[in-house]
Amino acid sequence: MAKYMCMDTLKWLLNDVHSVEDLFKYERYQDYDKDSVDILLDTAKTWSDQEFYPIFREMDENPCKFVDGEITSHPNLKRILKKAGEDGWIGNIFDYDEGGSQMPHTVANATNHIFQCANNHIPGYMGLTAGSADLIRTFGVQELKDKYMPKMMAGEWGGTMCLTEPQAGSSLSDITTSATPQADGSFKISGQKIFISGGDHQAASNFVHLVLARIDGAPAGTKGISLFVVPKHMEGEDGSLTYNNVETISEFEKMGQRGYATVHLVFGEKGDCVGHLIGQEGKGLKHMFKMMNGARIDVGMTAASTAMAAYHHSLQYAKERPQGRKIENSGKKDPNQGQTLIINHPDVRRMLLLQKAIVEGSLSILLETAKYSDLAHVEEGDAKDEYHLLLELLTPIAKTYPSEKGQEAINNGLQIYGGYGFCMDFPLQQYYRDIRIMSLYEGTTGIQSLDLLGRKVTAQNGAALQLLMKKITEVTDEASNHEELKPYVAQLNKSLESVQRALGYLLPMAMKGDYESFLADATAFMSMTSNVVIAYQWLKMATSAKHSLVTGDTTYQAKFYESKIHTMKFYFKYELPQVRAILATILNDDELTILKEDVDVFV
Amino acid sequence: MAKYMCMDTLKWLLNDVHSVEDLFKYERYQDYDKDSVDILLDTAKTWSDQEFYPIFREMDENPCKFVDGEITSHPNLKRILKKAGEDGWIGNIFDYDEGGSQMPHTVANATNHIFQCANNHIPGYMGLTAGSADLIRTFGVQELKDKYMPKMMAGEWGGTMCLTEPQAGSSLSDITTSATPQADGSFKISGQKIFISGGDHQAASNFVHLVLARIDGAPAGTKGISLFVVPKHMEGEDGSLTYNNVETISEFEKMGQRGYATVHLVFGEKGDCVGHLIGQEGKGLKHMFKMMNGARIDVGMTAASTAMAAYHHSLQYAKERPQGRKIENSGKKDPNQGQTLIINHPDVRRMLLLQKAIVEGSLSILLETAKYSDLAHVEEGDAKDEYHLLLELLTPIAKTYPSEKGQEAINNGLQIYGGYGFCMDFPLQQYYRDIRIMSLYEGTTGIQSLDLLGRKVTAQNGAALQLLMKKITEVTDEASNHEELKPYVAQLNKSLESVQRALGYLLPMAMKGDYESFLADATAFMSMTSNVVIAYQWLKMATSAKHSLVTGDTTYQAKFYESKIHTMKFYFKYELPQVRAILATILNDDELTILKEDVDVFV
Repeated sequence: MAKYMCMDTLKWLLNDVHSVEDLFKYERYQDYDKDSVDILLDTAKTWSDQEFYPIFREMDENPCKFVDGEITSHPNLKRILKKAGEDGWIGNIFDYDEGGSQMPHTVANATNHIFQCANNHIPGYMGLTAGSADLIRTFGVQELKDKYMPKMMAGEWGGTMCLTEPQAGSSLSDITTSATPQADGSFKISGQKIFISGGDHQAASNFVHLVLARIDGAPAGTKGISLFVVPKHMEGEDGSLTYNNVETISEFEKMGQRGYATVHLVFGEKGDCVGHLIGQEGKGLKHMFKMMNGARIDVGMTAASTAMAAYHHSLQYAKERPQGRKIENSGKKDPNQGQTLIINHPDVRRMLLLQKAIVEGSLSILLETAKYSDLAHVEEGDAKDEYHLLLELLTPIAKTYPSEKGQEAINNGLQIYGGYGFCMDFPLQQYYRDIRIMSLYEGTTGIQSLDLLGRKVTAQNGAALQLLMKKITEVTDEASNHEELKPYVAQLNKSLESVQRALGYLLPMAMKGDYESFLADATAFMSMTSNVVIAYQWLKMATSAKHSLVTGDTTYQAKFYESKIHTMKFYFKYELPQVRAILATILNDDELTILKEDVDVFV
Repeated sequence: MAKYMCMDTLKWLLNDVHSVEDLFKYERYQDYDKDSVDILLDTAKTWSDQEFYPIFREMDENPCKFVDGEITSHPNLKRILKKAGEDGWIGNIFDYDEGGSQMPHTVANATNHIFQCANNHIPGYMGLTAGSADLIRTFGVQELKDKYMPKMMAGEWGGTMCLTEPQAGSSLSDITTSATPQADGSFKISGQKIFISGGDHQAASNFVHLVLARIDGAPAGTKGISLFVVPKHMEGEDGSLTYNNVETISEFEKMGQRGYATVHLVFGEKGDCVGHLIGQEGKGLKHMFKMMNGARIDVGMTAASTAMAAYHHSLQYAKERPQGRKIENSGKKDPNQGQTLIINHPDVRRMLLLQKAIVEGSLSILLETAKYSDLAHVEEGDAKDEYHLLLELLTPIAKTYPSEKGQEAINNGLQIYGGYGFCMDFPLQQYYRDIRIMSLYEGTTGIQSLDLLGRKVTAQNGAALQLLMKKITEVTDEASNHEELKPYVAQLNKSLESVQRALGYLLPMAMKGDYESFLADATAFMSMTSNVVIAYQWLKMATSAKHSLVTGDTTYQAKFYESKIHTMKFYFKYELPQVRAILATILNDDELTILKEDVDVFV
């Protein structure tokens, strides 16, 4: 079987770089230790080898289809989801008394990484079911929890998030799905939802939709939105299912992730569709966002994992494919020599190192973000608030960087295959198609960028950024102990100054009330900031590796640690300099993207 | 019908920016004038509307397939190719007495742009047939010309280039297809060729393959390669066709350009396969490269055109799709207001302007390169040599920039559609898949970059670059007459200094004989240089537009000219600053991509 990820790198990131063991001292996580986490990861890997990776290509070649009112799915999916339930993978982060195993998010995300590297289609079904069960768990009354959570966590019923509507897209304040109060306290739901991932398929016997809708008479905008649990089938006392008029009317045929169902649902058009309000009336969007941070990190992890798998495939190919000769110092080539492996060509090595820098950097920031999520959960007082701020700040970055740069990574992996990269018989084209959705899912890159600059950076007078700076300083302080790393500390500090300069230019616009100008280059700011945050990850990784080398740590081979330091240097040479270009763009005061009444720039 | 290109922009580039009329004073082109070119372009557009665009999506949805030994093709293709022949589109650049119409490449490429914007699959069949007919025309004896050229130019027989073999890929010195001399002066051809575009399909009754092969006993390497004409069927005196044992054994199923056949051919395995040597023995690769410059420009134009079509589709979508609200200065949104069109959001405008800057900049450099090709053809003495040097220098850039940045443009176009961009019912995903092959066709980006830095820049002590500098200076001199453009002149000059600094750092390595280090960052050098060359195109366009505004030229509306100046400014704000980042990368003396014996960086 092809190598689709690196267990050593994952474990090293968890244990050495991000010290996941810090979490095990908290009461909530006291049953976990390094060995038990190792076993969990190995179990995930074995199952992925057996069930996930072997059907990855089949799921693309036989995509989900809408046939006779049903959405087809891979025949193995039902077995896999059932086992996911039996083995406790769904809802593993929940409390023991809710059927979970109180697994830290950091560990759960590491296992997700393994699943997603093997097959980026299947884990979405598990993640969305867990995410919607989490909303019921958090906001639902006991009766709803008892009714839905066990079946969902068992992998028998699927869960979904129903936000998007045809006329509104990303603009959630414009959704029109309605909820009409009934005498018994329930609501009649009516409306359409599109792009519902996992919204219907043959592998689950029922679906539990978490639906945003407006109660009749609710105000316009987001304040009028409430959250409802709407099952496809209502379960009677005897366990029988009665159709609740949630109709699937089509499957979106997609360019990638073709084995992951994306459906169009119509609620209550041909008969009554019953939903139950959860949480507070008018707080639906806020409640949904409880789940959204996790979903965004999931998307980032899926992107990172898809690109990780593509990287390992292209690495393997480069190690096996002979072509051309190394350039001699004379500039000539000797045709009588045998061909060299393409991994020996500098440009191929560049494309491999670029992938490695992007995918391992992505994985690292995702694990760090997950750890802040755990610490925000278990800590108290100021510390809790601080971790929450860090989580909020890093979430849009941890979603966006892997989604955007993961595309670039895979693009380079495809290029390494030459013409074969474009052929359906080779795997890279599937990764290339699959990852393209990640910068659209759960808030596009544009929306993440507005969130980063417009909300997260400005919140509490920039408190989150200050906390991040403290984290970075911890790393640069430690790195400065090593002569070899000092130049990179200086370069990182310089890049941080660029971010500060950008903010020094942008924030006064917000203060002056010129919000449109302030946010016009939010995407450039995202690009700059995420570049620096990944540089911080790489310096952190290099510092840990250097420490292991210096102390003679033999957990991994010396060349393993050296390769991490090498990749850090690659990142600082080839990626980090882009920060200064983006700074020049941001500081340029030509306002070219803001609509002006008298200028038509698209003639 | 959707707008898939802009005729005004094309005509403006031809007439105003690149003064195609300069060519008409040469005897060869004396039958052309502005009006006749206009009519040609309009004819191409009408035909594209009628025949090319309507089947673009069908050709993707019903891809070429290998069935019962044949490659299926779209049912309209035969009619289209026949009309292409009848109307003189194939081989239009040839002399009158060879059946051509002595059309300037510049004009022919402009018509190709129209065809390719409408449908990037079909023009490849026409272009390759013309290109291989051109090789027969140039190197073949009269008998071969008489036998093949008329049928090829009539669109009845297809022509191909057969270079790549399974074991050699880009490394042409390793091809093994053999040619065994026969008593009658012909050769028996034996071997396999892969990735043969247009190599077989139902729309042509015969195929004329231009095949690189080694005559028995030829030396290893490129010096042992000769060029052969190898028809699929031999034509008898009576016009009957006899199978020549060129067997199609499969079609490569591809991610994009699925309606454009790409086949695997086996020569002479089941019976004798006869070929005729053209040109000199051992000069096959050199001869093939006669065609290669043109083919590379064709690929660049196909990339530019694919991205142009995607741009116009996403522009149209942005003008029609309401979503969200403009940001008020308060930072708040009023949900009671109607939604705004997405073209009014700055980030959407940024994505549109980025596309416009890339695709129109690409089209401009491609027309300029084609013009140098024409001038090299008709000029004499030093002038001819100079235009040839410019053509050689710009060809790898004109191939690579549209192929690489065109992907980025389409990626942004797709993003504008939101989730719909990822759906097969919308057009952007097809453009996204189609364009991905362009940076692999006819020499990958890595190979183009080695060509640019290793050959074109260094040739004749940098003479080509000096000539280009002269051309750029002509533009900056003229731009400096306009106060509005002066800051951009300064910025362009600064970027040119960056290129010079990069060369000042790299060239001494070549002189010291350290070729591997010299070329290790050739791709970064390509990226930097092409960025500056496109900035030069934009300044040239802006200067022309400014001139028209100042002189009150009413050929186009004032807002048309203003939009070009605006896009130039966008390019200089958002794209050109990247040059300084790439310079930092190149000047960084960490050698991280060159294989070192004792370092394993891919653990």
